[in-house]
Amino acid sequence: MQLLNDEAYMRLALQLAQSALGQTGVNPVVGCVLVKDGRIVGMGAHLKRGHGHAEVLALQMAGEEARGSTAYVTLEPCSHYGKTPPCSDRLIEAGVARVVVAGTDPNPQVAGSGIAKLRDRGIDVTVGLLEAEASAMNEVFNKYIVTRMPFVTLKSASTLDGKIASKTGDSKWITSEASRAFVHTLRHRHQGIMVGAGTVIADDPLLSARGDVPAVQPVRIVADSLLRIPLDARVLQEQDRQPTILLASAQAPAERRAAMEARGVQVLTCGDGPQVDLTLAMQKLGELEIGSILLEGGGQLGGAMLERRLLDKVVLMYAPKIIGGGSAAPANLSFAGFAKMAEAITLDRVQVETIGPDICVTGYPVYA
Amino acid sequence: MQLLNDEAYMRLALQLAQSALGQTGVNPVVGCVLVKDGRIVGMGAHLKRGHGHAEVLALQMAGEEARGSTAYVTLEPCSHYGKTPPCSDRLIEAGVARVVVAGTDPNPQVAGSGIAKLRDRGIDVTVGLLEAEASAMNEVFNKYIVTRMPFVTLKSASTLDGKIASKTGDSKWITSEASRAFVHTLRHRHQGIMVGAGTVIADDPLLSARGDVPAVQPVRIVADSLLRIPLDARVLQEQDRQPTILLASAQAPAERRAAMEARGVQVLTCGDGPQVDLTLAMQKLGELEIGSILLEGGGQLGGAMLERRLLDKVVLMYAPKIIGGGSAAPANLSFAGFAKMAEAITLDRVQVETIGPDICVTGYPVYA
Repeated sequence: MQLLNDEAYMRLALQLAQSALGQTGVNPVVGCVLVKDGRIVGMGAHLKRGHGHAEVLALQMAGEEARGSTAYVTLEPCSHYGKTPPCSDRLIEAGVARVVVAGTDPNPQVAGSGIAKLRDRGIDVTVGLLEAEASAMNEVFNKYIVTRMPFVTLKSASTLDGKIASKTGDSKWITSEASRAFVHTLRHRHQGIMVGAGTVIADDPLLSARGDVPAVQPVRIVADSLLRIPLDARVLQEQDRQPTILLASAQAPAERRAAMEARGVQVLTCGDGPQVDLTLAMQKLGELEIGSILLEGGGQLGGAMLERRLLDKVVLMYAPKIIGGGSAAPANLSFAGFAKMAEAITLDRVQVETIGPDICVTGYPVYA
Repeated sequence: MQLLNDEAYMRLALQLAQSALGQTGVNPVVGCVLVKDGRIVGMGAHLKRGHGHAEVLALQMAGEEARGSTAYVTLEPCSHYGKTPPCSDRLIEAGVARVVVAGTDPNPQVAGSGIAKLRDRGIDVTVGLLEAEASAMNEVFNKYIVTRMPFVTLKSASTLDGKIASKTGDSKWITSEASRAFVHTLRHRHQGIMVGAGTVIADDPLLSARGDVPAVQPVRIVADSLLRIPLDARVLQEQDRQPTILLASAQAPAERRAAMEARGVQVLTCGDGPQVDLTLAMQKLGELEIGSILLEGGGQLGGAMLERRLLDKVVLMYAPKIIGGGSAAPANLSFAGFAKMAEAITLDRVQVETIGPDICVTGYPVYA
């Protein structure tokens, strides 16, 4: 049942926002709907960083009809000069009479000032409609804008006994075609896709987003402390189409670094230990404006990221299979672990869905 | 929407049958509803082995009203003299006009002859209504009556990384109170509950069915090749209330065997190898008329049973937690495993449900 009310227009604005997930970089997704005299007169979504904001595009569509209208916006209109002029000013100039906002902007440069500016100019502002939905959609932005660290989602595909390959290393295929199509959608929605050197050496993956339609290609990131992945690895090819960043230690041989850089690959030095300093690596990737990373393997890298509290979300896919193999078969998450069951890292806001024959568990690690 | 039709009466009969799950031993659960002139005149369910069959109890309730009625029975009426006289004869004597049967009896002593006898006497018989539901309810009976081997259901409770305890062996608690209550219901519904000696030594479990209300207590079965579980283990106590069977090898010391037997515990010799011959053990348990076993741990025993194709069903419960610990933390299923992912044992008829915060995956292993 759909009623004609504020919520219905805000849901439409949320749909507009959601459609742009994966194509706004470190910017939030935002949708806007303008309504006047019972008719929708404008719609907009922020589609690309540096391009028009949702409100501006909706105002353009509405033209003169914007005057006296109600604007439904999924995120507080900005109040500062960024890559574009402030949207709150644009709404005021256009003569919008009422603004309904889902949630305030966590960006310290905005954080309520956009709403305050509108109210100062006598515009009726309602805040908080479908705020939880709007905030969840921008979980990446909400972390990045405050911490300048990427939001990291671990994705694994394992058997029900938690194995990501057989004892001989065979992993083709664990999950179904439907699940693999979902993974390509996840890749499209993240700015970076990250694996460990072991995964590159074992599987030589392309790490691209491939679906029925073209996708935004994420930057490829490989944690390779000693730069030991082969120079002919597929992730090192076609740098003009899809760049690659290698995370290395200062211990990596200089000639390997030079050979990598000669191929157009960027090498980030993350500490001088035997392993990459993952926290430093995330800081450096954040500085490069990579706001979201899909971590795809293997279990050791996932475990190390979890231990360092760098995983924000997990998407654990299980195929209805049992492979066995004990410790010779690699696990979906591998790390030293905790002594007591009560110390286990629990997941919050768990969602369980089936994708074809597979089971997909999504949740947010809670670090004690 | 519930209509007054054959299906509605059969569903009621199935509910009557289902209510007796766990209390009929190796016998099937069966329900019967008698209907005459638009009114239910009798209802019955087989409640205990050696006691009345569903049809007989329903006929008793109906009395003279049985004459000319329609009988809805979830399983083909028996045609042989077992612990009670044949039900098909009783239906004929009572003057039932029509019999609707969900499915034929896989028991080689019946297998269609009950239906044939009814038809010979001019009774209108319909077969196959809700047959799949009726058959699924008696999955234990369907296996046992043909093979004389118990139907074995493996239950595990693990973290999302497949661990049934931390690296120090701590396992209290992995899953929620709601899941543990479900396990007690599963125990009630199985004739035997089985673990390995390692689980007894590590956890000293009671292995009883404990819920809000009293339950049928399963026989306790421990695979203990060398009879090394301590004599004061809780599973060896109170043999008059809940008997215990130990599965041992001929290599077990004679004095240990004597000590166990002195406590009233039955010791079955299953081969003379270093490990219990599990296939032989299942045959011997079948001879003792144990038709269903809930296998509760640990991962090595579960893996060994899976390798020997002795697991008929798995109930894998996952708490939304990650504990880590690598190979030091025991896994939900542990066995040598397969070289190729394509060789993995797949599960058929997979069901996924949530129990409180936990995820429960049920399925039937398909052995290539």
